[in-house]
Amino acid sequence: MPAQNKKEYPLDVIRHSASHVMAYAINQLYPEAQFGIGPSIENGFYYDVNFPQGLKLTEQDLVLIKNKMIQVIKDKIPFEKKEITANEAKKLFSNLNQPYKLEIIDELVSKGNGNVSIYKLGDFVDLCSGPHVSNSGEISCFELLSIAGAYWKGNEKNEMLTRIYGTAFHNENDLMQYINTLEESKLRDHRILGQQLDLFCFSDLVGPGLPLFTPRGTAMKEALQKKIEDICYSKGFRKVMTPHIAKKGLFKISGHADKYPEELFHVNCDRYQEYVMKPVQCPHQTQIYASRPRSYKDLPIRYMESEKQYRAEKSGELSGLSRVLAITVEDGHSFCTVDQVKSEVKLMVEIIKEFYSSLGLWGTNWISLSVRDPKHPEKYIGDPKDWVVCEDMLQEVSDEMGLNAIRCEGEAAVYGPKLDFMFKDALGRQIQIPTVQVDFATPKRFNLEYTNEKGQKVNPIMVHRAILGSYERLLVLLIEYFGGDFPFWLAPEQIRILTIKEDYNNYAKEILMILESNRIRAEVDYRNISLSDKMKSAHEYKIPYLLIIGDKELKNKVVTVRNRVTGEQEVINKDSIVEYFSNK
Amino acid sequence: MPAQNKKEYPLDVIRHSASHVMAYAINQLYPEAQFGIGPSIENGFYYDVNFPQGLKLTEQDLVLIKNKMIQVIKDKIPFEKKEITANEAKKLFSNLNQPYKLEIIDELVSKGNGNVSIYKLGDFVDLCSGPHVSNSGEISCFELLSIAGAYWKGNEKNEMLTRIYGTAFHNENDLMQYINTLEESKLRDHRILGQQLDLFCFSDLVGPGLPLFTPRGTAMKEALQKKIEDICYSKGFRKVMTPHIAKKGLFKISGHADKYPEELFHVNCDRYQEYVMKPVQCPHQTQIYASRPRSYKDLPIRYMESEKQYRAEKSGELSGLSRVLAITVEDGHSFCTVDQVKSEVKLMVEIIKEFYSSLGLWGTNWISLSVRDPKHPEKYIGDPKDWVVCEDMLQEVSDEMGLNAIRCEGEAAVYGPKLDFMFKDALGRQIQIPTVQVDFATPKRFNLEYTNEKGQKVNPIMVHRAILGSYERLLVLLIEYFGGDFPFWLAPEQIRILTIKEDYNNYAKEILMILESNRIRAEVDYRNISLSDKMKSAHEYKIPYLLIIGDKELKNKVVTVRNRVTGEQEVINKDSIVEYFSNK
Repeated sequence: MPAQNKKEYPLDVIRHSASHVMAYAINQLYPEAQFGIGPSIENGFYYDVNFPQGLKLTEQDLVLIKNKMIQVIKDKIPFEKKEITANEAKKLFSNLNQPYKLEIIDELVSKGNGNVSIYKLGDFVDLCSGPHVSNSGEISCFELLSIAGAYWKGNEKNEMLTRIYGTAFHNENDLMQYINTLEESKLRDHRILGQQLDLFCFSDLVGPGLPLFTPRGTAMKEALQKKIEDICYSKGFRKVMTPHIAKKGLFKISGHADKYPEELFHVNCDRYQEYVMKPVQCPHQTQIYASRPRSYKDLPIRYMESEKQYRAEKSGELSGLSRVLAITVEDGHSFCTVDQVKSEVKLMVEIIKEFYSSLGLWGTNWISLSVRDPKHPEKYIGDPKDWVVCEDMLQEVSDEMGLNAIRCEGEAAVYGPKLDFMFKDALGRQIQIPTVQVDFATPKRFNLEYTNEKGQKVNPIMVHRAILGSYERLLVLLIEYFGGDFPFWLAPEQIRILTIKEDYNNYAKEILMILESNRIRAEVDYRNISLSDKMKSAHEYKIPYLLIIGDKELKNKVVTVRNRVTGEQEVINKDSIVEYFSNK
Repeated sequence: MPAQNKKEYPLDVIRHSASHVMAYAINQLYPEAQFGIGPSIENGFYYDVNFPQGLKLTEQDLVLIKNKMIQVIKDKIPFEKKEITANEAKKLFSNLNQPYKLEIIDELVSKGNGNVSIYKLGDFVDLCSGPHVSNSGEISCFELLSIAGAYWKGNEKNEMLTRIYGTAFHNENDLMQYINTLEESKLRDHRILGQQLDLFCFSDLVGPGLPLFTPRGTAMKEALQKKIEDICYSKGFRKVMTPHIAKKGLFKISGHADKYPEELFHVNCDRYQEYVMKPVQCPHQTQIYASRPRSYKDLPIRYMESEKQYRAEKSGELSGLSRVLAITVEDGHSFCTVDQVKSEVKLMVEIIKEFYSSLGLWGTNWISLSVRDPKHPEKYIGDPKDWVVCEDMLQEVSDEMGLNAIRCEGEAAVYGPKLDFMFKDALGRQIQIPTVQVDFATPKRFNLEYTNEKGQKVNPIMVHRAILGSYERLLVLLIEYFGGDFPFWLAPEQIRILTIKEDYNNYAKEILMILESNRIRAEVDYRNISLSDKMKSAHEYKIPYLLIIGDKELKNKVVTVRNRVTGEQEVINKDSIVEYFSNK
């Protein structure tokens, strides 16, 4: 019963072994190919390969590789492990003309390794610490999925390798289920829908990971921003605006410059040196707090901001709006006294509930009460007494608000405990968006103060909260969740006005102006094409309502409103249009 | 009649001479002082001086310097010019221990100067090409104004010198009038009002020239943004959002990287090189246009954006919100056919008229029709035929719309003619804000295209327009114009609710929530202080309306509305508050 045997191996061992089998197949087909790394990853594996003479792999090549792999699996070739000295390994891979492996060996040596392990699969040798299945026959259910480009070590300065993605499962059923999910996700892929619906674009001249929001995408972003800001404003948050750069020292104090040095964009010119682009919003906001003397009577002070921040993510990881260099973050903070922390946290949870309810997402989520790892108290800053108080406080909030938060040890931020809200995306994958975090450390680092009732200067507590998270990631979620079929309030173009003949364009323009001046997002299709072509185009853009204008409509000063999804039609008086749509 | 004589000299000669007299006086008082440059400027003069041992000049020191200057003027010491070789000059200023002068001599030499000129005033020698008055007695009406810091050559990497500002006029009358204007301008100074009214702040940790907008300043910025975007939206402009950085190549193509290299902020990190912060918005917007194939049926396409752009202005020139490194620009473009240019320009002029009328500023302005310098056609790019067509078109727009634009030769942009709108600030100084510019060049540089009626690919025309200009500069204008006493729609805090006793705080909160949920900007003064103290604080912040809540108000479910400026009071029913204020 080979299937039984295979189940004994964890999935990542099977997938990692499949990646070696793929390398073996590639080596046979393209003897000059040079290999980078080939790890197992979540849901599959990949291998980065430098093909001779800049060969561009096609889907057909994938079929060839797959067929060769099937052969190797049939042949049940054993995986053989061997420990050799680094010097022997260098000779071996030098003879094989595998420069990337030589680089890896050098790195291992520089970390103090005298020996390295290699795996043989037939006549194919790879540098690898394993583990693997005992022979290639123990991999059966695999599939090659896609081809992408990836810089060696993720660094743009290095050459671009070809990354081949694949996956493997314990059985056909699991594999098919995964493939089906992938197909579904391709249909809903925000990158494809974003292009189809003209929501955002990228430009080689501007650079990768830097989305340009078209009018339609901007309209969606603004609809989200209005919704979150209206809610937060009515809960006492006040908007601030801060620049995208600052002296590096600001982030030295906050700790970000030392913690994430690789993700910092450095900004310099002859006139100004040692500036960086902000990777987070908090430090700038502390400086607004610090700009005036504060009294306990002024607290809590609540700021919110929806601004871009910049992080130099690895170029190989950039993908549509999911992973970008310019990320628009909806961030906010409450500066308050210890006594106010609990009610501030509750206020923020209420906002999260209200916002996600309005998106129809509340209820699909669970909440993590992320506390310290009790075995490693040294990983956290601040007074342990404060920690106990605040962790208990978050537990009370959970109890009193019926959140049923699940206590997750070791998940706290370095500066304090937090509540993390986990949602599911269109394909049931779990993602964390909103968060409420208690922070004792930052106010101390920035020497923020207020005068308490006794006239003493003391540090406030800072409660961080992200409700919407990043606009880019929430758009990914919503685009895929709705499959582009957005509810009226979120639709980039809410209404399209279709004229049957050009004669009605003036009347259409009149209707448009009524809608525009009420900030209802409408456009007229003035083109000299047939109504059915206009309808087709409106369907392609998934516009919720169509307003059809012909002879009768012009004469009677009405419009025919058509619900694109249901096909239902209503005749509405010109003067009632705004009212009609303000209830949608 | 010495006064007659003095009038023979232009003001800049008198001022430049006064700056030498000031240097003479400083040299006598502080023999070790080292001198940078001391030019005449608009409205006065300055001298940059390095004082020995980091001496910090005070207002009292200014009095000493002034008294010494009066003595020098009484003594009628002659200005004597002399041409000497650069080498002689280097020996001279080396003996005098004047390193800045030596640097200037080296620069002159590197530009091919063999000789330099010096001016003697008594025993004080300065490197200077003049001209000057014949003797110090010909300066009488002068005043020393202020002390500031300035980096040598405006470069942050150099040492900070002390800059002393002064001015001189032909007669006492002119001087007094200028000083009065200065006093008035100090009262209205946006930097002082900005601090008093808590509109924006700066932080040493963030850096100079990088304003942080507090909740109150942000509210004003957003009120302006809503106004301009509502108008533009109803005229067919659609908002886009683009990132703050791009590959440098984008601005190579647009021409900005080569034209303003010193003002570009460079952005780099290990993972990404050769990026810059955008100094203008246009190139990013061209990339949205370029993201899809366009047909003549799609034109005009109109984009607008209110985003920050970054320019490395000299640190010595940074001042409040007037000159910043992070400038929020309201920029927009119409991509259109040649036939549409005229109607697009008209549309934009209509928007300008509507926006500035709503600010109460329309009518105080004049308009420049900025055309080529006919003597220097080589300074402009594009086909001369296009220029004639477009200049004539702008003239027609002026005639047809009754703009009475004044033809200003040599004021065109390098890529096309434009209409510039000139306004007056609170002190009657002229400033240019809105502009409409026709641009043939940029679409060609970026290879933008549309398919015309004949199926050919042709370049669109790009019409640039700034209506509001930069939010920072418009805020300077408005803060100083209104002296902080803003109209209701613009006031950062429109209403403050004042409770007579803490007992009424709950009712106040109820009223606040009604106002907040209608996005009326209100706050409650919950503090446990007397009503008169609360009134005083509301007056300091120049809040338009005060809502007073006492026993009677609570019992009758009303509020007493007090107009802060007129002192008039009205009693308004709780349910009518929103309606009452939505008419303000």
